[in-house]
Amino acid sequence: MPGKFTFFSEYIHHNIAEFSEGEYNHIVNVTRYDIGDFIEFTDGKGHLFKGKLIEINKRSCKVEIQETILQELPSLWIAMGILKNSDRMEWAVEKCTELGVFSLTFLHTKNSERSKINLDRLRKTAISAIKQSHTSHLPQMEDLKFTEFINQFSGEKFNYMNKYIAFCDISNLGDMINVNGNSISISNLISNSKDLKNNDLIAIGPEGDFSLEEVALALTKGFRLLDLGNRILRSETAVVSTCAIANHN
Amino acid sequence: MPGKFTFFSEYIHHNIAEFSEGEYNHIVNVTRYDIGDFIEFTDGKGHLFKGKLIEINKRSCKVEIQETILQELPSLWIAMGILKNSDRMEWAVEKCTELGVFSLTFLHTKNSERSKINLDRLRKTAISAIKQSHTSHLPQMEDLKFTEFINQFSGEKFNYMNKYIAFCDISNLGDMINVNGNSISISNLISNSKDLKNNDLIAIGPEGDFSLEEVALALTKGFRLLDLGNRILRSETAVVSTCAIANHN
Repeated sequence: MPGKFTFFSEYIHHNIAEFSEGEYNHIVNVTRYDIGDFIEFTDGKGHLFKGKLIEINKRSCKVEIQETILQELPSLWIAMGILKNSDRMEWAVEKCTELGVFSLTFLHTKNSERSKINLDRLRKTAISAIKQSHTSHLPQMEDLKFTEFINQFSGEKFNYMNKYIAFCDISNLGDMINVNGNSISISNLISNSKDLKNNDLIAIGPEGDFSLEEVALALTKGFRLLDLGNRILRSETAVVSTCAIANHN
Repeated sequence: MPGKFTFFSEYIHHNIAEFSEGEYNHIVNVTRYDIGDFIEFTDGKGHLFKGKLIEINKRSCKVEIQETILQELPSLWIAMGILKNSDRMEWAVEKCTELGVFSLTFLHTKNSERSKINLDRLRKTAISAIKQSHTSHLPQMEDLKFTEFINQFSGEKFNYMNKYIAFCDISNLGDMINVNGNSISISNLISNSKDLKNNDLIAIGPEGDFSLEEVALALTKGFRLLDLGNRILRSETAVVSTCAIANHN
Protein backbone atom coordinates (compact mmCIF):
# COMPACT_ATOMS: atom_id res chain seq x y z
CA MET A 1 0.00 0.00 0.00
CA PRO A 2 1.62 3.28 -1.06
CA GLY A 3 2.25 5.81 1.66
CA LYS A 4 0.74 9.28 1.75
CA PHE A 5 2.14 11.61 -0.90
CA THR A 6 0.83 14.79 -2.45
CA PHE A 7 1.34 15.09 -6.18
CA PHE A 8 1.08 18.11 -8.42
CA SER A 9 -0.89 18.66 -11.60
CA GLU A 10 -1.68 21.73 -13.64
CA TYR A 11 -3.53 19.73 -16.26
CA ILE A 12 -7.00 19.49 -14.82
CA HIS A 13 -10.04 19.46 -17.10
CA HIS A 14 -13.48 18.92 -15.65
CA ASN A 15 -12.83 16.19 -13.11
CA ILE A 16 -9.87 14.55 -14.78
CA ALA A 17 -6.29 15.38 -13.82
CA GLU A 18 -3.40 14.39 -16.00
CA PHE A 19 0.14 13.69 -14.79
CA SER A 20 3.17 13.47 -17.04
CA GLU A 21 6.97 13.36 -16.91
CA GLY A 22 8.36 13.55 -13.37
CA GLU A 23 5.00 13.28 -11.63
CA TYR A 24 4.00 10.35 -13.83
CA ASN A 25 7.27 8.63 -13.07
CA HIS A 26 6.85 9.21 -9.36
CA ILE A 27 3.28 7.92 -9.28
CA VAL A 28 3.65 4.88 -11.52
CA ASN A 29 7.28 3.78 -11.31
CA VAL A 30 8.51 4.95 -7.93
CA THR A 31 5.48 4.77 -5.66
CA ARG A 32 3.90 2.13 -7.93
CA TYR A 33 0.32 3.25 -7.68
CA ASP A 34 -2.03 1.16 -9.81
CA ILE A 35 -5.42 1.49 -11.46
CA GLY A 36 -8.02 1.89 -8.72
CA ASP A 37 -5.62 3.38 -6.16
CA PHE A 38 -6.48 6.71 -4.58
CA ILE A 39 -4.00 9.53 -4.75
CA GLU A 40 -3.89 13.03 -3.30
CA PHE A 41 -2.70 15.98 -5.31
CA THR A 42 -2.82 19.75 -5.64
CA ASP A 43 -3.12 22.23 -8.49
CA GLY A 44 -1.04 24.77 -6.59
CA LYS A 45 -4.04 27.10 -6.65
CA GLY A 46 -5.44 26.38 -3.24
CA HIS A 47 -7.08 23.04 -3.95
CA LEU A 48 -6.29 19.66 -2.52
CA PHE A 49 -7.83 16.79 -4.45
CA LYS A 50 -8.40 13.14 -3.81
CA GLY A 51 -8.88 11.03 -6.91
CA LYS A 52 -8.82 7.55 -8.32
CA LEU A 53 -6.16 6.47 -10.80
CA ILE A 54 -8.16 5.42 -13.87
CA GLU A 55 -5.70 5.25 -16.77
CA ILE A 56 -1.98 4.55 -17.11
CA ASN A 57 -0.29 5.21 -20.45
CA LYS A 58 3.31 5.05 -21.55
CA ARG A 59 4.18 8.58 -20.42
CA SER A 60 1.16 9.90 -18.64
CA CYS A 61 -1.66 8.84 -16.36
CA LYS A 62 -5.11 10.10 -15.51
CA VAL A 63 -6.86 10.52 -12.20
CA GLU A 64 -10.59 11.01 -11.69
CA ILE A 65 -11.26 13.59 -8.97
CA GLN A 66 -13.53 12.31 -6.21
CA GLU A 67 -13.10 15.03 -3.61
CA THR A 68 -11.97 18.66 -3.60
CA ILE A 69 -10.86 20.48 -0.49
CA LEU A 70 -10.40 24.23 -0.71
CA GLN A 71 -7.55 25.24 1.57
CA GLU A 72 -6.93 28.56 3.25
CA LEU A 73 -4.32 30.50 1.31
CA PRO A 74 -1.27 32.10 2.84
CA SER A 75 -1.44 35.87 2.67
CA LEU A 76 2.13 37.04 3.18
CA TRP A 77 3.95 38.87 0.37
CA ILE A 78 7.73 38.76 0.42
CA ALA A 79 10.16 40.56 -1.85
CA MET A 80 13.81 39.61 -1.70
CA GLY A 81 16.88 41.05 -3.32
CA ILE A 82 18.40 38.67 -5.85
CA LEU A 83 21.36 36.93 -4.28
CA LYS A 84 24.68 35.97 -5.82
CA ASN A 85 24.32 32.41 -4.56
CA SER A 86 21.40 30.66 -6.21
CA ASP A 87 21.48 27.74 -3.76
CA ARG A 88 20.73 30.18 -0.95
CA MET A 89 17.86 31.65 -2.94
CA GLU A 90 16.44 28.18 -3.50
CA TRP A 91 16.66 27.48 0.25
CA ALA A 92 14.72 30.68 0.91
CA VAL A 93 12.05 29.75 -1.65
CA GLU A 94 11.70 26.25 -0.21
CA LYS A 95 11.48 27.45 3.39
CA CYS A 96 9.07 30.33 2.70
CA THR A 97 6.83 27.96 0.76
CA GLU A 98 6.77 25.53 3.70
CA LEU A 99 6.12 28.31 6.20
CA GLY A 100 3.46 29.98 4.07
CA VAL A 101 3.86 32.75 1.54
CA PHE A 102 1.37 34.02 -1.05
CA SER A 103 3.85 35.75 -3.31
CA LEU A 104 7.61 35.92 -3.75
CA THR A 105 9.07 38.79 -5.76
CA PHE A 106 12.74 38.72 -6.67
CA LEU A 107 14.20 42.20 -6.85
CA HIS A 108 16.87 43.53 -9.14
CA THR A 109 18.43 46.10 -6.83
CA LYS A 110 21.41 48.42 -6.97
CA ASN A 111 23.51 46.08 -4.82
CA SER A 112 22.41 42.78 -6.36
CA GLU A 113 25.46 40.88 -7.55
CA ARG A 114 23.55 38.82 -10.05
CA SER A 115 21.25 39.94 -12.81
CA LYS A 116 19.76 36.72 -14.12
CA ILE A 117 17.65 34.34 -12.14
CA ASN A 118 16.29 30.96 -13.06
CA LEU A 119 12.60 31.37 -12.25
CA ASP A 120 11.81 27.96 -13.66
CA ARG A 121 14.18 26.30 -11.22
CA LEU A 122 12.80 28.30 -8.31
CA ARG A 123 9.31 27.26 -9.35
CA LYS A 124 10.33 23.60 -9.33
CA THR A 125 11.74 24.11 -5.83
CA ALA A 126 8.43 25.56 -4.68
CA ILE A 127 6.47 22.70 -6.28
CA SER A 128 8.60 20.18 -4.37
CA ALA A 129 7.98 22.13 -1.20
CA ILE A 130 4.18 22.17 -1.54
CA LYS A 131 4.22 18.44 -2.29
CA GLN A 132 6.42 17.77 0.74
CA SER A 133 4.29 19.87 3.05
CA HIS A 134 0.95 18.69 1.62
CA THR A 135 -0.12 22.27 1.01
CA SER A 136 -1.91 23.66 -2.00
CA HIS A 137 -0.69 27.15 -2.80
CA LEU A 138 2.21 27.55 -5.19
CA PRO A 139 3.61 31.03 -4.45
CA GLN A 140 3.29 33.56 -7.26
CA MET A 141 6.80 34.31 -8.39
CA GLU A 142 8.27 37.03 -10.60
CA ASP A 143 11.34 39.18 -10.79
CA LEU A 144 11.10 42.96 -11.00
CA LYS A 145 13.39 45.94 -11.03
CA PHE A 146 13.22 47.67 -7.66
CA THR A 147 11.47 50.76 -9.05
CA GLU A 148 8.88 48.64 -10.90
CA PHE A 149 8.24 46.76 -7.66
CA ILE A 150 7.71 49.94 -5.66
CA ASN A 151 5.42 51.38 -8.32
CA GLN A 152 3.41 48.18 -8.55
CA PHE A 153 2.78 48.09 -4.84
CA SER A 154 2.00 51.81 -4.62
CA GLY A 155 -1.16 51.22 -6.60
CA GLU A 156 -4.61 51.49 -5.06
CA LYS A 157 -5.01 47.73 -5.21
CA PHE A 158 -2.42 47.42 -2.44
CA ASN A 159 -3.55 50.29 -0.24
CA TYR A 160 -4.87 47.93 2.41
CA MET A 161 -1.48 46.35 2.92
CA ASN A 162 1.13 47.26 5.47
CA LYS A 163 4.36 47.52 3.51
CA TYR A 164 7.83 47.26 5.02
CA ILE A 165 11.35 47.66 3.77
CA ALA A 166 14.06 46.13 5.95
CA PHE A 167 17.24 48.14 6.31
CA CYS A 168 20.30 47.33 8.41
CA ASP A 169 21.76 50.79 8.77
CA ILE A 170 18.74 52.69 10.10
CA SER A 171 20.82 54.56 12.66
CA ASN A 172 22.87 56.00 9.83
CA LEU A 173 19.83 57.43 8.07
CA GLY A 174 19.88 60.34 10.49
CA ASP A 175 16.83 61.96 12.08
CA MET A 176 15.22 63.21 8.93
CA ILE A 177 15.24 61.98 5.40
CA ASN A 178 14.94 64.39 2.53
CA VAL A 179 12.82 63.11 -0.28
CA ASN A 180 11.65 65.19 -3.21
CA GLY A 181 12.16 68.34 -1.19
CA ASN A 182 10.19 67.13 1.82
CA SER A 183 11.68 66.34 5.21
CA ILE A 184 10.33 63.17 6.75
CA SER A 185 11.07 62.22 10.37
CA ILE A 186 12.69 58.80 10.37
CA SER A 187 11.67 57.73 13.85
CA ASN A 188 7.98 57.88 12.95
CA LEU A 189 8.59 55.44 10.14
CA ILE A 190 10.30 52.63 12.05
CA SER A 191 8.62 49.32 12.87
CA ASN A 192 10.09 46.11 14.21
CA SER A 193 9.38 42.39 13.92
CA LYS A 194 6.67 42.54 16.58
CA ASP A 195 4.55 44.67 14.23
CA LEU A 196 4.55 42.15 11.41
CA LYS A 197 1.34 40.36 10.43
CA ASN A 198 0.71 37.50 8.07
CA ASN A 199 -0.83 39.66 5.34
CA ASP A 200 1.92 42.24 5.08
CA LEU A 201 4.35 42.98 2.27
CA ILE A 202 7.95 42.76 3.42
CA ALA A 203 10.98 43.66 1.30
CA ILE A 204 14.43 42.42 2.31
CA GLY A 205 17.56 43.45 0.46
CA PRO A 206 20.44 41.49 -1.06
CA GLU A 207 23.75 40.93 0.69
CA GLY A 208 24.72 44.57 0.26
CA ASP A 209 21.26 45.70 1.47
CA PHE A 210 19.12 48.30 -0.27
CA SER A 211 20.70 51.62 -1.23
CA LEU A 212 19.75 54.87 0.50
CA GLU A 213 17.96 55.94 -2.67
CA GLU A 214 15.92 52.74 -2.80
CA VAL A 215 14.93 53.14 0.85
CA ALA A 216 13.99 56.77 0.28
CA LEU A 217 11.85 55.85 -2.72
CA ALA A 218 10.05 53.16 -0.75
CA LEU A 219 9.38 55.58 2.13
CA THR A 220 7.78 58.09 -0.20
CA LYS A 221 5.51 55.38 -1.54
CA GLY A 222 4.00 54.28 1.74
CA PHE A 223 6.55 51.75 3.00
CA ARG A 224 7.70 51.78 6.61
CA LEU A 225 11.25 50.99 7.72
CA LEU A 226 11.64 47.56 9.25
CA ASP A 227 14.26 47.23 11.95
CA LEU A 228 15.13 43.55 12.23
CA GLY A 229 17.27 44.04 15.34
CA ASN A 230 20.93 44.00 16.17
CA ARG A 231 22.05 40.67 14.84
CA ILE A 232 23.66 40.60 11.42
CA LEU A 233 21.82 38.05 9.30
CA ARG A 234 22.54 36.73 5.86
CA SER A 235 19.93 37.93 3.40
CA GLU A 236 18.22 34.56 3.05
CA THR A 237 18.24 34.06 6.84
CA ALA A 238 16.45 37.37 7.29
CA VAL A 239 13.90 36.35 4.65
CA VAL A 240 13.09 32.98 6.24
CA SER A 241 13.20 34.27 9.81
CA THR A 242 10.89 37.16 8.95
CA CYS A 243 8.52 34.80 7.12
CA ALA A 244 8.35 32.59 10.22
CA ILE A 245 7.77 35.54 12.54
CA ALA A 246 5.14 37.27 10.39
CA ASN A 247 3.15 34.04 10.12
CA HIS A 248 3.56 33.45 13.85
CA ASN A 249 2.62 36.85 15.27
CA MET B 1 42.47 49.22 3.16
CA PRO B 2 40.94 45.86 4.03
CA GLY B 3 37.22 45.73 4.68
CA LYS B 4 35.63 44.70 7.95
CA PHE B 5 35.96 41.00 8.73
CA THR B 6 35.74 39.04 11.94
CA PHE B 7 38.30 36.28 12.29
CA PHE B 8 38.43 33.38 14.71
CA SER B 9 41.13 32.23 17.06
CA GLU B 10 41.22 29.71 19.88
CA TYR B 11 44.89 30.26 20.50
CA ILE B 12 44.94 33.23 22.80
CA HIS B 13 47.59 33.55 25.48
CA HIS B 14 47.76 36.66 27.59
CA ASN B 15 47.16 39.39 25.03
CA ILE B 16 48.50 37.59 21.99
CA ALA B 17 46.25 35.72 19.58
CA GLU B 18 47.64 33.29 17.06
CA PHE B 19 46.09 32.44 13.72
CA SER B 20 47.07 29.49 11.59
CA GLU B 21 45.92 27.50 8.56
CA GLY B 22 42.68 28.79 7.04
CA GLU B 23 42.47 31.89 9.21
CA TYR B 24 46.10 32.71 8.53
CA ASN B 25 45.52 32.28 4.82
CA HIS B 26 42.46 34.50 4.92
CA ILE B 27 44.19 37.26 6.89
CA VAL B 28 47.52 37.34 5.09
CA ASN B 29 46.92 36.04 1.57
CA VAL B 30 43.29 36.79 0.80
CA THR B 31 42.54 39.98 2.68
CA ARG B 32 46.22 40.96 2.64
CA TYR B 33 46.43 42.48 6.05
CA ASP B 34 49.94 43.65 6.92
CA ILE B 35 52.02 44.35 10.04
CA GLY B 36 50.42 47.26 11.84
CA ASP B 37 46.91 46.69 10.50
CA PHE B 38 44.07 46.30 12.97
CA ILE B 39 41.90 43.25 12.82
CA GLU B 40 38.76 42.15 14.64
CA PHE B 41 38.31 38.60 15.84
CA THR B 42 36.49 36.39 18.30
CA ASP B 43 37.37 33.42 20.50
CA GLY B 44 33.88 32.01 20.15
CA LYS B 45 33.46 32.36 23.91
CA GLY B 46 31.64 35.64 24.00
CA HIS B 47 34.56 37.98 23.36
CA LEU B 48 35.12 40.30 20.45
CA PHE B 49 38.68 41.56 20.18
CA LYS B 50 40.42 44.31 18.27
CA GLY B 51 44.13 43.84 17.84
CA LYS B 52 47.17 44.83 15.86
CA LEU B 53 48.92 42.40 13.54
CA ILE B 54 52.47 42.23 14.92
CA GLU B 55 54.06 39.15 13.38
CA ILE B 56 53.66 37.24 10.10
CA ASN B 57 55.36 33.87 9.73
CA LYS B 58 55.26 31.26 7.03
CA ARG B 59 52.14 29.53 8.33
CA SER B 60 50.90 31.60 11.20
CA CYS B 61 50.56 35.17 12.37
CA LYS B 62 50.18 36.92 15.70
CA VAL B 63 47.92 39.73 16.79
CA GLU B 64 48.33 41.85 19.89
CA ILE B 65 44.98 42.50 21.56
CA GLN B 66 44.22 46.17 22.11
CA GLU B 67 40.55 46.02 23.04
CA THR B 68 38.18 43.38 24.40
CA ILE B 69 34.41 43.65 24.18
CA LEU B 70 32.35 41.18 26.15
CA GLN B 71 29.18 40.41 24.23
CA GLU B 72 25.84 39.24 25.53
CA LEU B 73 25.53 35.51 25.00
CA PRO B 74 22.54 33.84 23.38
CA SER B 75 20.60 31.74 25.86
CA LEU B 76 18.51 29.39 23.73
CA TRP B 77 19.13 25.63 23.85
CA ILE B 78 18.06 23.60 20.86
CA ALA B 79 18.12 19.84 20.42
CA MET B 80 17.45 18.43 16.98
CA GLY B 81 17.02 14.90 15.74
CA ILE B 82 19.87 13.81 13.49
CA LEU B 83 18.77 14.10 9.87
CA LYS B 84 19.52 11.81 6.95
CA ASN B 85 20.64 14.77 4.85
CA SER B 86 23.75 16.39 6.30
CA ASP B 87 23.44 19.48 4.07
CA ARG B 88 20.13 20.23 5.73
CA MET B 89 21.70 19.81 9.17
CA GLU B 90 24.52 22.17 8.22
CA TRP B 91 21.97 24.69 7.02
CA ALA B 92 20.17 24.48 10.39
CA VAL B 93 23.45 24.91 12.30
CA GLU B 94 24.40 27.94 10.20
CA LYS B 95 21.00 29.61 10.58
CA CYS B 96 20.63 28.93 14.31
CA THR B 97 24.12 30.33 14.88
CA GLU B 98 23.20 33.51 12.98
CA LEU B 99 19.90 33.87 14.82
CA GLY B 100 21.40 33.13 18.23
CA VAL B 101 21.69 29.80 20.02
CA PHE B 102 23.70 28.90 23.10
CA SER B 103 23.78 25.17 22.61
CA LEU B 104 22.94 22.69 19.84
CA THR B 105 22.46 19.06 20.78
CA PHE B 106 22.13 16.47 18.03
CA LEU B 107 19.89 13.61 19.05
CA HIS B 108 20.14 9.97 18.15
CA THR B 109 16.47 9.09 18.16
CA LYS B 110 14.40 6.03 17.31
CA ASN B 111 13.44 7.45 13.92
CA SER B 112 16.81 8.97 12.99
CA GLU B 113 17.88 7.59 9.63
CA ARG B 114 21.54 8.28 10.21
CA SER B 115 23.72 7.25 13.13
CA LYS B 116 26.97 9.07 12.49
CA ILE B 117 27.38 12.79 12.37
CA ASN B 118 30.40 14.86 11.49
CA LEU B 119 30.60 17.21 14.47
CA ASP B 120 33.83 18.68 13.20
CA ARG B 121 32.18 19.77 10.00
CA LEU B 122 29.20 21.21 11.84
CA ARG B 123 31.61 23.12 14.07
CA LYS B 124 33.35 24.58 11.02
CA THR B 125 29.94 25.66 9.72
CA ALA B 126 29.20 27.42 12.99
CA ILE B 127 32.61 29.14 13.00
CA SER B 128 31.93 30.51 9.51
CA ALA B 129 28.56 31.71 10.71
CA ILE B 130 29.91 33.62 13.71
CA LYS B 131 32.57 35.21 11.52
CA GLN B 132 29.97 36.20 8.94
CA SER B 133 27.61 37.65 11.53
CA HIS B 134 30.36 39.31 13.60
CA THR B 135 29.14 37.55 16.74
CA SER B 136 31.19 35.92 19.43
CA HIS B 137 29.50 32.82 20.74
CA LEU B 138 30.29 29.49 19.12
CA PRO B 139 27.36 27.23 20.03
CA GLN B 140 28.22 24.28 22.29
CA MET B 141 27.66 21.19 20.19
CA GLU B 142 27.43 17.51 21.05
CA ASP B 143 25.47 14.47 20.02
CA LEU B 144 23.59 12.39 22.56
CA LYS B 145 21.27 9.43 22.62
CA PHE B 146 17.75 10.60 23.32
CA THR B 147 17.61 9.03 26.78
CA GLU B 148 20.98 10.54 27.75
CA PHE B 149 19.69 13.91 26.60
CA ILE B 150 16.52 13.66 28.67
CA ASN B 151 18.45 12.52 31.74
CA GLN B 152 21.02 15.29 31.37
CA PHE B 153 18.36 17.97 31.23
CA SER B 154 16.33 16.49 34.08
CA GLY B 155 19.13 17.35 36.47
CA GLU B 156 18.75 20.08 39.08
CA LYS B 157 21.10 22.31 37.11
CA PHE B 158 18.40 22.72 34.48
CA ASN B 159 15.40 23.10 36.78
CA TYR B 160 15.06 26.78 35.94
CA MET B 161 14.55 26.08 32.26
CA ASN B 162 11.30 25.68 30.40
CA LYS B 163 11.73 22.52 28.38
CA TYR B 164 9.69 21.64 25.30
CA ILE B 165 9.42 18.67 23.01
CA ALA B 166 7.80 19.33 19.63
CA PHE B 167 5.47 16.65 18.35
CA CYS B 168 3.41 16.66 15.15
CA ASP B 169 0.76 14.15 16.10
CA ILE B 170 -0.44 15.60 19.39
CA SER B 171 -4.08 14.94 18.53
CA ASN B 172 -3.29 11.25 18.28
CA LEU B 173 -1.83 11.10 21.79
CA GLY B 174 -5.33 10.94 23.17
CA ASP B 175 -6.58 12.70 26.30
CA MET B 176 -4.37 11.00 28.80
CA ILE B 177 -0.93 9.53 28.58
CA ASN B 178 0.05 6.61 30.75
CA VAL B 179 3.56 6.83 32.04
CA ASN B 180 5.03 4.55 34.69
CA GLY B 181 1.55 3.73 35.88
CA ASN B 182 0.45 7.35 36.20
CA SER B 183 -2.20 9.00 34.04
CA ILE B 184 -1.23 12.46 32.90
CA SER B 185 -3.73 14.78 31.18
CA ILE B 186 -2.29 15.76 27.82
CA SER B 187 -4.12 19.06 27.42
CA ASN B 188 -2.43 20.50 30.49
CA LEU B 189 0.93 19.80 28.94
CA ILE B 190 0.53 21.58 25.59
CA SER B 191 2.24 24.85 24.73
CA ASN B 192 2.57 26.64 21.42
CA SER B 193 5.07 28.94 19.74
CA LYS B 194 3.72 31.99 21.53
CA ASP B 195 4.95 30.57 24.84
CA LEU B 196 8.55 30.24 23.72
CA LYS B 197 11.25 32.44 25.23
CA ASN B 198 14.89 32.92 24.34
CA ASN B 199 16.22 30.92 27.29
CA ASP B 200 14.19 27.79 26.78
CA LEU B 201 15.24 24.30 25.78
CA ILE B 202 13.43 23.09 22.68
CA ALA B 203 13.69 19.60 21.21
CA ILE B 204 12.60 18.96 17.62
CA GLY B 205 12.54 15.50 16.11
CA PRO B 206 14.00 14.05 12.91
CA GLU B 207 11.98 13.56 9.69
CA GLY B 208 9.98 10.73 11.27
CA ASP B 209 9.43 12.77 14.48
CA PHE B 210 9.95 11.46 17.98
CA SER B 211 8.37 8.15 18.95
CA LEU B 212 5.51 7.94 21.43
CA GLU B 213 7.87 6.39 23.96
CA GLU B 214 10.34 9.23 23.58
CA VAL B 215 7.59 11.82 24.05
CA ALA B 216 6.26 9.97 27.10
CA LEU B 217 9.73 9.84 28.65
CA ALA B 218 10.22 13.56 28.10
CA LEU B 219 6.84 14.36 29.64
CA THR B 220 7.72 12.44 32.79
CA LYS B 221 10.93 14.42 33.07
CA GLY B 222 9.45 17.89 33.06
CA PHE B 223 9.13 18.63 29.33
CA ARG B 224 5.98 20.17 27.91
CA LEU B 225 4.53 19.29 24.52
CA LEU B 226 5.15 21.92 21.88
CA ASP B 227 2.47 22.29 19.22
CA LEU B 228 4.07 24.01 16.24
CA GLY B 229 0.77 24.45 14.40
CA ASN B 230 -0.92 22.92 11.40
CA ARG B 231 1.65 23.33 8.70
CA ILE B 232 3.87 20.38 7.95
CA LEU B 233 7.48 21.53 8.11
CA ARG B 234 10.67 19.75 7.29
CA SER B 235 12.66 19.06 10.44
CA GLU B 236 15.32 21.67 9.74
CA THR B 237 12.67 24.26 8.83
CA ALA B 238 10.97 23.69 12.19
CA VAL B 239 14.33 24.07 13.96
CA VAL B 240 15.22 27.37 12.29
CA SER B 241 11.71 28.80 12.42
CA THR B 242 11.42 27.95 16.13
CA CYS B 243 14.86 29.46 16.81
CA ALA B 244 13.73 32.69 15.10
CA ILE B 245 10.44 32.80 17.00
CA ALA B 246 11.91 31.98 20.44
CA ASN B 247 14.51 34.75 20.03
CA HIS B 248 11.83 37.14 18.78
CA ASN B 249 9.09 36.66 21.38
